[in-house]
Amino acid sequence: MIEVSDAPGLDAAVMSSLERVRTFIDARLDAAIEMSADASPRLVDAMRYALLAPGKRLRPTLVLWAASACSSDGAGRSCEEAWEAAAPAALAVEMIHAYSLVHDDLPAMDDDDLRRGRPTCHRQFDEATAILCGDALQALAFEALAQGMPAATAARGCLVLARAAGGEALVGGQADDLAAERGWVSDLATAPAAEQVAWLERIHRRKTGALFIAALELGGLSVAARHDQLAMLAAFGRVFGLAFQIADDILDAEGTEAAVGKRVGKDVERGKLTFPSVIGLEASRERGHALAREAVGAVAGMGPEADDLARLAHWIIRRNH
Amino acid sequence: MIEVSDAPGLDAAVMSSLERVRTFIDARLDAAIEMSADASPRLVDAMRYALLAPGKRLRPTLVLWAASACSSDGAGRSCEEAWEAAAPAALAVEMIHAYSLVHDDLPAMDDDDLRRGRPTCHRQFDEATAILCGDALQALAFEALAQGMPAATAARGCLVLARAAGGEALVGGQADDLAAERGWVSDLATAPAAEQVAWLERIHRRKTGALFIAALELGGLSVAARHDQLAMLAAFGRVFGLAFQIADDILDAEGTEAAVGKRVGKDVERGKLTFPSVIGLEASRERGHALAREAVGAVAGMGPEADDLARLAHWIIRRNH
Repeated sequence: MIEVSDAPGLDAAVMSSLERVRTFIDARLDAAIEMSADASPRLVDAMRYALLAPGKRLRPTLVLWAASACSSDGAGRSCEEAWEAAAPAALAVEMIHAYSLVHDDLPAMDDDDLRRGRPTCHRQFDEATAILCGDALQALAFEALAQGMPAATAARGCLVLARAAGGEALVGGQADDLAAERGWVSDLATAPAAEQVAWLERIHRRKTGALFIAALELGGLSVAARHDQLAMLAAFGRVFGLAFQIADDILDAEGTEAAVGKRVGKDVERGKLTFPSVIGLEASRERGHALAREAVGAVAGMGPEADDLARLAHWIIRRNH
Repeated sequence: MIEVSDAPGLDAAVMSSLERVRTFIDARLDAAIEMSADASPRLVDAMRYALLAPGKRLRPTLVLWAASACSSDGAGRSCEEAWEAAAPAALAVEMIHAYSLVHDDLPAMDDDDLRRGRPTCHRQFDEATAILCGDALQALAFEALAQGMPAATAARGCLVLARAAGGEALVGGQADDLAAERGWVSDLATAPAAEQVAWLERIHRRKTGALFIAALELGGLSVAARHDQLAMLAAFGRVFGLAFQIADDILDAEGTEAAVGKRVGKDVERGKLTFPSVIGLEASRERGHALAREAVGAVAGMGPEADDLARLAHWIIRRNH
C-alpha cells in the first residue's frame, strides 16, 4: 500500500513516471498520424495539432500501467513487453480523447479559444476542419485498435472502446451536460444538493469516467488479463474517474490559466454546477482524497505492480494542471 | 449477364428488390438505436431522426447483396442466412453514412437545410446536438460491427470500416472537397478539363467510393467469402461508386428538389466542379452508362447470384432520386 506521508516525494515520482509514458506514447502517436497523400494536407495538420498537443497523456498512462500491473504477476511478461502489447490501445484512447476535446471546444458546443495552452483546433484552423479532424481521429482510434490488437481480442477491444465513446457514455454525458447548461433540464438549479451531486456524478461517470474505465480494461485485455484483475481495474477506474473530475472542478475554481492551459473560472461564469459550487471547495477536496484512498484500496490486491496506479490516484487530486 | 433492353422492367425489379432490403434493414436499424437511459433523450431523438430518415439504404443493400452473391456458390448458405450474417455490417455502414450526412450538412460545412426531404439534423434539433449525434452514430457503427460480426472476422471488419471512414477516405475526400470550394486549392478552376476530371475522381473515390467498396467487402467478409470473390466485389465497387457520383451530379444539375429530397442546383450556385460542369451533361450520362456496364462485367464471374448487383449498377445511373 502506498504511503502518502511523503507527498512531495510521491508527486515527483509520479511526474517522472508520467514523463516516461509521455516519451513512449508521443513517438507512437506521431507515427500513427502519418497519412498518405489521400488525406487532405490541412486535415492532417489539424489532426497532428490536436493529437500531439502537450498533454498529460493520462488515458494512455492508464492503459499502459493497467497492462504492466496485470503482467508481472506470474505471466512472465516484462513491463516493456506489456507496454508494447498495450500501445495500440493506448493510442486509440488518446485519439478518442483528442477528438472529443476538438469537438467540445467548437463554437456550437463549449466555444473555447484555448486548450492545452494553445488556440483550440477551430481557432488555429477553421470550424469545418475541426469537425472533420475530430471525425477522422475517432475513425483512426478504431483503426489503431483493430490493426494493433491481436485478432482474438480486437473484437472485444473495439466493443469496449465503441461503448465508452458512444451515446450512452462519453457523448451521452456531454449531451446531458450541454442540456443542463442551456437550461433544457428544468429544476436542476433549484434541486437539493444531494440531487445535484447525483446529477454531477451521473454526468461525469459517462463524460470522463467511462473512457478511464475503458482505458484500464483495454490495458488489461492487451495482455490477456484474468477476470479478477479486470474487475480490480474497473473498480479502480470508477473512483479514479470521479476523483479526477472533482480535481478538474477545483482547478477551474482556483487554478490559473497559465498552469491549467485552458480558460479557468468558466464554470462559475456560466453558472454551471460543479462539486465546489454544490458542496464547497473544502468538502470537494476531502471527497477527492477519500476517492483516491478508495482507488488505492481497489488495486491493493494486485501487488506492487499496481503501485504506479495507486500513486497516480493520490496525485490526481493534488495536481495543479 | 443482365440485358438492359427492358429498362422499365429492370427498374421496377430493382425498386422492388430495394424495397425488400429497406424493410429488412429498417427494422434492425430501429432496434440498434435503442439506448439505455444513459443516453441523453434529445441525443437519441436526433440519432433516430438521422438514422431512420427515409433513404435508399444503398450501402446496406450493397452489404447484403455482396453477402448473398458470395454465399450461394456452393457454400450451402441460403440468401436469408447470408443476410442475417451480414446484417451487423449493413447497419454499421448505414450508421457511418448517416453520421457523415449530419456533419456534412452543418453550417460550418455545406450549410444545408434539407436532407432526404426533411429539415437537416441541426435545423430540426440544434448544432451541438447534430455534432454529438454524428459522433455517437460513428461510435455506434463500430459497436454494431464489433458486437455482431464473428470474433474471428470482426478485427478485419473494424479495420475495413475504420479505413473507409477515416482521414484517407471519407473524411479526407470531404476535406479536399471543402478546400476546393473555399478556394484553398489554387489553379483548379482554370485547370484543363482532364485535370479537373482527375481531381473529381480523386475526391469521389474517397468521399463516396471508399464506403461503397467497404460495404461490399464487409458483406463478403460476413460470409467468409473467398479471395477471388472479394476481388470481384472490389472491382465492382470502384466503378459503381463513380457511376453513382456522376448520377448524383446529373441529379443536382437537372433533378427537382421534390424528387431528390435535398436542395438541387447548389453545385452550379457555388461554382462547384461537377462532371456535367466539366465534360457536359451528355458526356456525363454516357460515362455513367459505360461505368455501369463495366460494373456488370466485374461481377459477371460470380454467376446469377450477383444479378441484383448488376441490375443495381444499371439503375444507379438512371435513377431520379
